[in-house]
Amino acid sequence: MKTITVSIVNVTSYTGLELLRLLSAHPCFAVTSVTARSTAGKRLCEVFPQLGYVDSMIVKSETRAGAISELVIADEPDLTDLAFVCLPHVAAAESVLSLLERGIKVVDLSADFRLHTPALYEEWYKHTHPAPALLEEAVYGLCERYRERIQGAALVANPGCYATAAILGLAPALAMGLITLDVIIDAKSGVSGAGRGLTLGTHYTEANEDVSAYSLSGHRHLPEIVQELEAAARTGGHPVEHPLRATFVPHLMPMTRGILATCYADLNQQGARSSLTTEEIRALYAQYYAGEPFVHIVEQPPHTKWTYGSNQCLVYPMVDTRTGRLLVISCLDNLVKGAAGQAIQNANRLYGLAETTGLPAVALYP
Amino acid sequence: MKTITVSIVNVTSYTGLELLRLLSAHPCFAVTSVTARSTAGKRLCEVFPQLGYVDSMIVKSETRAGAISELVIADEPDLTDLAFVCLPHVAAAESVLSLLERGIKVVDLSADFRLHTPALYEEWYKHTHPAPALLEEAVYGLCERYRERIQGAALVANPGCYATAAILGLAPALAMGLITLDVIIDAKSGVSGAGRGLTLGTHYTEANEDVSAYSLSGHRHLPEIVQELEAAARTGGHPVEHPLRATFVPHLMPMTRGILATCYADLNQQGARSSLTTEEIRALYAQYYAGEPFVHIVEQPPHTKWTYGSNQCLVYPMVDTRTGRLLVISCLDNLVKGAAGQAIQNANRLYGLAETTGLPAVALYP
Amino acid sequence: MKTITVSIVNVTSYTGLELLRLLSAHPCFAVTSVTARSTAGKRLCEVFPQLGYVDSMIVKSETRAGAISELVIADEPDLTDLAFVCLPHVAAAESVLSLLERGIKVVDLSADFRLHTPALYEEWYKHTHPAPALLEEAVYGLCERYRERIQGAALVANPGCYATAAILGLAPALAMGLITLDVIIDAKSGVSGAGRGLTLGTHYTEANEDVSAYSLSGHRHLPEIVQELEAAARTGGHPVEHPLRATFVPHLMPMTRGILATCYADLNQQGARSSLTTEEIRALYAQYYAGEPFVHIVEQPPHTKWTYGSNQCLVYPMVDTRTGRLLVISCLDNLVKGAAGQAIQNANRLYGLAETTGLPAVALYP
Amino acid sequence: MKTITVSIVNVTSYTGLELLRLLSAHPCFAVTSVTARSTAGKRLCEVFPQLGYVDSMIVKSETRAGAISELVIADEPDLTDLAFVCLPHVAAAESVLSLLERGIKVVDLSADFRLHTPALYEEWYKHTHPAPALLEEAVYGLCERYRERIQGAALVANPGCYATAAILGLAPALAMGLITLDVIIDAKSGVSGAGRGLTLGTHYTEANEDVSAYSLSGHRHLPEIVQELEAAARTGGHPVEHPLRATFVPHLMPMTRGILATCYADLNQQGARSSLTTEEIRALYAQYYAGEPFVHIVEQPPHTKWTYGSNQCLVYPMVDTRTGRLLVISCLDNLVKGAAGQAIQNANRLYGLAETTGLPAVALYP
Repeated sequence: MKTITVSIVNVTSYTGLELLRLLSAHPCFAVTSVTARSTAGKRLCEVFPQLGYVDSMIVKSETRAGAISELVIADEPDLTDLAFVCLPHVAAAESVLSLLERGIKVVDLSADFRLHTPALYEEWYKHTHPAPALLEEAVYGLCERYRERIQGAALVANPGCYATAAILGLAPALAMGLITLDVIIDAKSGVSGAGRGLTLGTHYTEANEDVSAYSLSGHRHLPEIVQELEAAARTGGHPVEHPLRATFVPHLMPMTRGILATCYADLNQQGARSSLTTEEIRALYAQYYAGEPFVHIVEQPPHTKWTYGSNQCLVYPMVDTRTGRLLVISCLDNLVKGAAGQAIQNANRLYGLAETTGLPAVALYP
Repeated sequence: MKTITVSIVNVTSYTGLELLRLLSAHPCFAVTSVTARSTAGKRLCEVFPQLGYVDSMIVKSETRAGAISELVIADEPDLTDLAFVCLPHVAAAESVLSLLERGIKVVDLSADFRLHTPALYEEWYKHTHPAPALLEEAVYGLCERYRERIQGAALVANPGCYATAAILGLAPALAMGLITLDVIIDAKSGVSGAGRGLTLGTHYTEANEDVSAYSLSGHRHLPEIVQELEAAARTGGHPVEHPLRATFVPHLMPMTRGILATCYADLNQQGARSSLTTEEIRALYAQYYAGEPFVHIVEQPPHTKWTYGSNQCLVYPMVDTRTGRLLVISCLDNLVKGAAGQAIQNANRLYGLAETTGLPAVALYP
Repeated sequence: MKTITVSIVNVTSYTGLELLRLLSAHPCFAVTSVTARSTAGKRLCEVFPQLGYVDSMIVKSETRAGAISELVIADEPDLTDLAFVCLPHVAAAESVLSLLERGIKVVDLSADFRLHTPALYEEWYKHTHPAPALLEEAVYGLCERYRERIQGAALVANPGCYATAAILGLAPALAMGLITLDVIIDAKSGVSGAGRGLTLGTHYTEANEDVSAYSLSGHRHLPEIVQELEAAARTGGHPVEHPLRATFVPHLMPMTRGILATCYADLNQQGARSSLTTEEIRALYAQYYAGEPFVHIVEQPPHTKWTYGSNQCLVYPMVDTRTGRLLVISCLDNLVKGAAGQAIQNANRLYGLAETTGLPAVALYP
Repeated sequence: MKTITVSIVNVTSYTGLELLRLLSAHPCFAVTSVTARSTAGKRLCEVFPQLGYVDSMIVKSETRAGAISELVIADEPDLTDLAFVCLPHVAAAESVLSLLERGIKVVDLSADFRLHTPALYEEWYKHTHPAPALLEEAVYGLCERYRERIQGAALVANPGCYATAAILGLAPALAMGLITLDVIIDAKSGVSGAGRGLTLGTHYTEANEDVSAYSLSGHRHLPEIVQELEAAARTGGHPVEHPLRATFVPHLMPMTRGILATCYADLNQQGARSSLTTEEIRALYAQYYAGEPFVHIVEQPPHTKWTYGSNQCLVYPMVDTRTGRLLVISCLDNLVKGAAGQAIQNANRLYGLAETTGLPAVALYP
């Protein structure tokens, strides 16, 4: 097939770098344009020295040839078929507007198009939405929920890393009507989720040998989790007027990559609090995700390390028999299934390619 | 005052080693006898080379002189005033029986005397209790709850590391009648909690850069958590016949020391679900722990690293205003307040010393 | 081209697991047979649960179909075109003998066929060589030195991880006659180099936050380093009768993957001790490795992390102008270029494939 | 004895924080004044929250009472008996000048008074020395070399962390005339050595799972190493006119604390290249350091972790019999014996206290 040309906007972020790694092995997408305000004019290998030694990472476009590492970072993206936008919120929306106007399809890795209403956005992001008209058009980029709508879309809003883990873990139970609308998500993330910006909390000597909770007054991934879990609940027959009661506590772990979400909910009457077994729950989940290339129901508590560098999300549902609670543990690599890998999965779907195209299935272990 | 002679039974465990570190700075206790089956006949410095270079770690007994590191590991403890027992369960009980018969007071760091009934012990430890008669005599060694009974006791059952974090976090809310009898404890621990025994899960390359949940069918610290939280609840006016519904999920973190317990509970009617604020909860907790030397209510989410090497337990209660839930985060160093430090705090109390005697208050940071 | 069937002997080692990861993305090799004594009869996904969820990792043989993870571990390998032997020394030689007799080509990842004489082997491995007749036939599997001989060979001896880093760092200086025959190699390795076997030194709590030197009386990679550096020196005109004086000190680092070798040598007269500059040395090295796909001369001190998961070896030569010493820093991923990746590079060469076939060029970063 | 009042200038550095930790357990020194430009006006517990919960860390001065954590950070230090200066170079010298003028004794943890000549200072620090007149008066604060001169001094220049490890490792061999004047020091440090300032290289995700060399064109600890090793060599009979040829390569390790220096030198004729054994070298070193409370000759390669949080320096000398080289491995905690602990050792000596007063001998392990 014809090569699809790709821009990465704000390539100097960790998600930008991870897109470079993954796209370098992709048979159909060719990165031909990269941008970053602060380093415009430099070649990629000056910012990421490790890329400077990658001969085989060839730009596969007809119009440009050479190693990706030699690409010069620009201020603004060239005209390409597709753009991955790795900017922070607000800046992302402005870039997306401009890209769409130029006819470039967009997978936006920011939070700007994940929420369905400008009001909700304003509540959580403390900013008037810069492009409210696009909110309706944008598709929430979780193939496991919306793959039909993603194919052919112009704008895909790539989910948050925590949100992906939480939604993939709890949506089945809500969609199948097994639990009450009351959930707790205790999530643990590696430090790369905090990005490449320097802070005291992500200084090596502070983050090493330490665990702490943060964003306790409300992490910004909470509203998209609620939005999507409520959508799943309505599929499961819960009336629209019942809102989800959700507590979400993220924690920082002393490791680079990985998210593990431990989710707690009460089995409801239909969930047969006293009789549904772990084996039955596991079978229901396996059936729910049957055929999914990147979500797998596992038979023992999963380790984040089993997903290191891969696009897998591993889900472990079980019944806490002493209490009749449903426990679901789900984990993934926050930079892959939680960001760049999922973005490529969305781009694959958007162009009608197999979702697995170019995506690593095997984790780096140990 | 007269020096109190001390034995450490099974000194080659991490708790044994931590006792050596802490007792070497203690003004009243002198380690004069150490045991370990597998290394009997060796000197301490052969097993722990780092101790071999510690001149100042002098045995302070009148009867023996010299560096602790020169102590020869024996099969059985000498006659001392006090013994810290660091054996695994079952073996611990047998040792404790023999020590008490010889008139030696005991702080037992195993689980053998924490639960009040032989039946509960047998259910969780799959073993007939080796010394059921002692269960009544033993005091649960949490000074913050039982300091009156500990003073003068012959046998103190040192709490589990997870249990200490969970109980110190949730007992106030239950004792003050603020929450319903339904709690979730999501706990994160460093690897030293798993001890010095070799397993694939604690092999460096497997545990590094990894997070996972374990013991999902029921961790053995759960029954002592339930026992002590129910006791607190009854203080708070909950009728005896109402059992606590508790879910406890421990996780392994890629770090050596530290436990962080994130606890979730619903504020009850009395807890004025809609009106009690974080500031009020914090004030109530501060009042509850007023004067405690080793429990502190903190004003921001605590970091395990703030307790590294110290005997502090930091507690952060807050109201999740979106859901009316109480969140309590508590953290400590699992080898200090979660084991050896708490054992010394108990021994201090047992002999009528100030509880802080010889215990480090300042954490090693960074 | 026709698929080449492959066995992995002792697949339950870390090198075996890394071979599985890399071969799963290889277009020409199909893993059809895996062995491991202790887990024979189990499926791969029972030993490595993370592989159980890899749909796309298909056995590409005509004769067998299905996911690699479903392969049943056997006692002995099937008849395949090629075998990767991941056994410890001595056991490896026995396996290699049997494989070659069956007409199976072998890349041996053990040390059994790296040294050229049985006497040297016996001195370092304290064992009579099990197959001395094969020593002459075996080719030392460093493509950068012996690619002509590797193509078409029946038995390739894959170099040690430390040896690869040291030889690629120092061979050019010796081959170009720039330094005296006196070198110091101070090497730092991640813990995965010690393998999957449990030891106190690789217990998480012992290895974390620790650095130490080991094998100070002589690490077994030293003789192959000396053998290959002497060979390089002879290319550079050093007379055969002058032996290399080499000190090699390995250190264990608190990380999973990566080796960094810091090499020290005196520039000799020809090396123009007082006049050769870092820029000139770098140019000479770049020329020496021109066209190599997996060795790159870098312009700043390299980081092991720049090679994480990739088959790159990064080399940084410089002149310490104060002392007239040559410093060469080289680094690689010990499980890839230091083991499984290099083994595949050798296998590619052996079958006349491009050496880069199926090998990752881009590191996982961060 | 009378309490000695102490200031910590620039307390918000890691060395400042470590001084607080250690001084809080010191029986004679009372911290009564702390300064830091950027956080002046705040209480200590606002900058270091973990200190806020330390009841027992009482200011022991007659004139002020209360917890250290309640001390208000000032712009300029009060009049105290002694000041520890933790400023960067240049700023430190200016502060020291002012402190001495006010009659306050100073232990300066910066590099400003370590080198004996303004010219050498200017060469390495690219700055005219701000107080050259004090260079002669200042004593290099290594008690193991200069304890006579330190007692009663007004200004002690606390050595660099790398320098302490290297000098304690190599000075005996030079002073005893065992090696030639040609040494290589390959040093490995934890990240806390880089301080509390934020840089990309010390960002958690960049430093974790990574090893690299740095400052290859000349680390600033090199001139003090050379100065002190040359001084030791002259003690050993080397003529003044022979300069030391020294290569020093520091490396960053993925851990918080610890330095390990691996030192290489050739045994000279007197060192009886062919006959001196490891046992003999070890005995000579043990004799050299006999009676030292904080330097110990160990019988196996030491681990940085054996010194975690303690003021120990462990030294392991050996003969590499294949090459006739002397190898010396020395290690310490860079924040204790490499900085704050050594500063207190110097202050103890300065006031005629036992050098061990208030200093931890036992490491935190594991």
